[in-house]
Amino acid sequence: MNYKNFPMVSKVVFGRGSFNQLGDILEPKRLNTEAPFIFFVDDIFKGDAWLCSRIPLSYNDKIIYVSTVEEPKTSQIDALVEQIVLDFALKPSGIIGIGGGSTLDIAKAVSLMLTNDGESSKYQGWDLIKNPGIFHVGIPTISGTGAEVSRTTILTGPKLKLGINSDFTPFDQVVLDPELTKNVPKDQWFYTGMDCFVHCIESLNGTYLNAFSRTYGEKALELCEAIFLGDELTEEEAQDQLMMASWHGGMSIAYSQVGVAHALSYGLGFLLGIKHGIGNCIVFDHLEEFYPEGVKTFKAMKAKHRINLPQGICSQLSNEEFDTMITVALSLEPLWENAIGANWKSVITRDKLRALYQKM
Amino acid sequence: MNYKNFPMVSKVVFGRGSFNQLGDILEPKRLNTEAPFIFFVDDIFKGDAWLCSRIPLSYNDKIIYVSTVEEPKTSQIDALVEQIVLDFALKPSGIIGIGGGSTLDIAKAVSLMLTNDGESSKYQGWDLIKNPGIFHVGIPTISGTGAEVSRTTILTGPKLKLGINSDFTPFDQVVLDPELTKNVPKDQWFYTGMDCFVHCIESLNGTYLNAFSRTYGEKALELCEAIFLGDELTEEEAQDQLMMASWHGGMSIAYSQVGVAHALSYGLGFLLGIKHGIGNCIVFDHLEEFYPEGVKTFKAMKAKHRINLPQGICSQLSNEEFDTMITVALSLEPLWENAIGANWKSVITRDKLRALYQKM
Repeated sequence: MNYKNFPMVSKVVFGRGSFNQLGDILEPKRLNTEAPFIFFVDDIFKGDAWLCSRIPLSYNDKIIYVSTVEEPKTSQIDALVEQIVLDFALKPSGIIGIGGGSTLDIAKAVSLMLTNDGESSKYQGWDLIKNPGIFHVGIPTISGTGAEVSRTTILTGPKLKLGINSDFTPFDQVVLDPELTKNVPKDQWFYTGMDCFVHCIESLNGTYLNAFSRTYGEKALELCEAIFLGDELTEEEAQDQLMMASWHGGMSIAYSQVGVAHALSYGLGFLLGIKHGIGNCIVFDHLEEFYPEGVKTFKAMKAKHRINLPQGICSQLSNEEFDTMITVALSLEPLWENAIGANWKSVITRDKLRALYQKM
Repeated sequence: MNYKNFPMVSKVVFGRGSFNQLGDILEPKRLNTEAPFIFFVDDIFKGDAWLCSRIPLSYNDKIIYVSTVEEPKTSQIDALVEQIVLDFALKPSGIIGIGGGSTLDIAKAVSLMLTNDGESSKYQGWDLIKNPGIFHVGIPTISGTGAEVSRTTILTGPKLKLGINSDFTPFDQVVLDPELTKNVPKDQWFYTGMDCFVHCIESLNGTYLNAFSRTYGEKALELCEAIFLGDELTEEEAQDQLMMASWHGGMSIAYSQVGVAHALSYGLGFLLGIKHGIGNCIVFDHLEEFYPEGVKTFKAMKAKHRINLPQGICSQLSNEEFDTMITVALSLEPLWENAIGANWKSVITRDKLRALYQKM
């Protein structure tokens, strides 16, 4: 048995208003006045003075607003890297992502692709990155994805939706300021929170589970249940605790693996462009067979918050389209092995996955 | 408000038998054949082939057995550093600590003092270290201290018992192999486990608490209660979970602070050489006033495991000796501020501490 040697985030600051410390955190990392800090910011914050006026810009530092209507693509990463290389004489001092999972993943991927040659799609997979990236900072503005602690950056490439998984992927610095999540719309809060909930269920019910991933997953699950089913938390407490649930849930899957919902959700994302949070919810709603207790709890959370999920999204798909989704889902072998065990191929057939997708 | 920017352990591996991966972990870190790995190993393992035969030695790598009958002293660190400098032409490739809190702290301190000039006592305090240490690895063989995740290395100096607290102190690599704890004697298991329990109580009842430290502390406390009060865990599960409790409890205090028990225990340690684990227990037994629930739980754990703590250890002390202990305890200002609040000086007088010590 060979256990994972997991690379952790190098430094973390937590607290309401800790975003104000960003200038002090970045200052000692500036290589020189010609080497900028590049801030990737979710474009929902464009014109939001409360947040953007506090981004500490000096010299030729630059904010690049990114749309997250679609999830990050390898072609998008390659274009962003090319733009930075063309615009600046020197490599950046740092890459800072401010946003949700997509924005954090863009920051991680651009950081890595500034120091590793070629197209990003050739690094989709495990441990293909050779050089450390540029100093990179993650600042979540929505809680649940776990992108702030993971060693991956999930990208949709020409052939697959698959992460760049490497020891160089985790952030060098994370700023956890729960106040930044205060304006998240309710449906998005639910979908992204459920990403964390699903991480916990998939980790705690997986064959890769050990005491490390279990203790993180149990705590994150307990926090999710208090936040999404309880009535005792103030709004601020719920924001603080969901940010920690995302962190602990992320640590739990980092040391084990996700499972059925993520594999199927990646298929939906690749073919239909359905975003990860809502995609997880659409899928998880139909996974009683794999996660009976978890799905029951999920349905209670969904009812409590009056969330209506899209139905029938696969009803018009062609055979070829089903095949594409199934191929993407089946490519994620570690997820299936974690969920089902070493003999997963005898259980998870193409027909089985098609039947599941047809319910959605 | 300025929040801590906490440096984390760089990489962590967890699992029973993961100690066998040490060779693979170290190999890429070897600078050259003349730059050794130095293994500090608790001398209770001298002659223990089960453990020592698996320490991966090559070239001029060296095991240095250290006695932990007494806790580490600054003079001891200085002597070890001098010995390494004299014995080897090049600086080591890495420093590996295999043992309890004392051994882990020795590894951390030696790593730092090989790259920072002068005597170690001048670095006791906060953020006095200027240069990163030598690559250093922590491998606990007993659970509870949290030394595996902390940014300190506690040393007894000529004037104070005080840590070298710095961003360079945390380990670059931690190996968490619960199997290494299987032969810990019961009393030592209890005392060191209670170090973790006390960390949780002090963190969760401190004024520095926030959602980050709370979520770690709550999980660690829950694990301690299951281990020390419950009857449901197998021996292996209890070993696995106590190692994780130590990790989470360490993270909790790292992001908040310890409190009354640690401050008083440092006084006992400095004057009487009482080791930290048992010292915490002796002190905590008398802290109902500060931690009523925690002390009640502690007494239940003590009774369940039939632990008899030394009594009357301060009964023969002189006025001067009380003064020394009280001065050491009062020097730990952040601990008191966390435990009592900003106005702690109006509550915690020298007379008050003397009365507490006199009970012990």
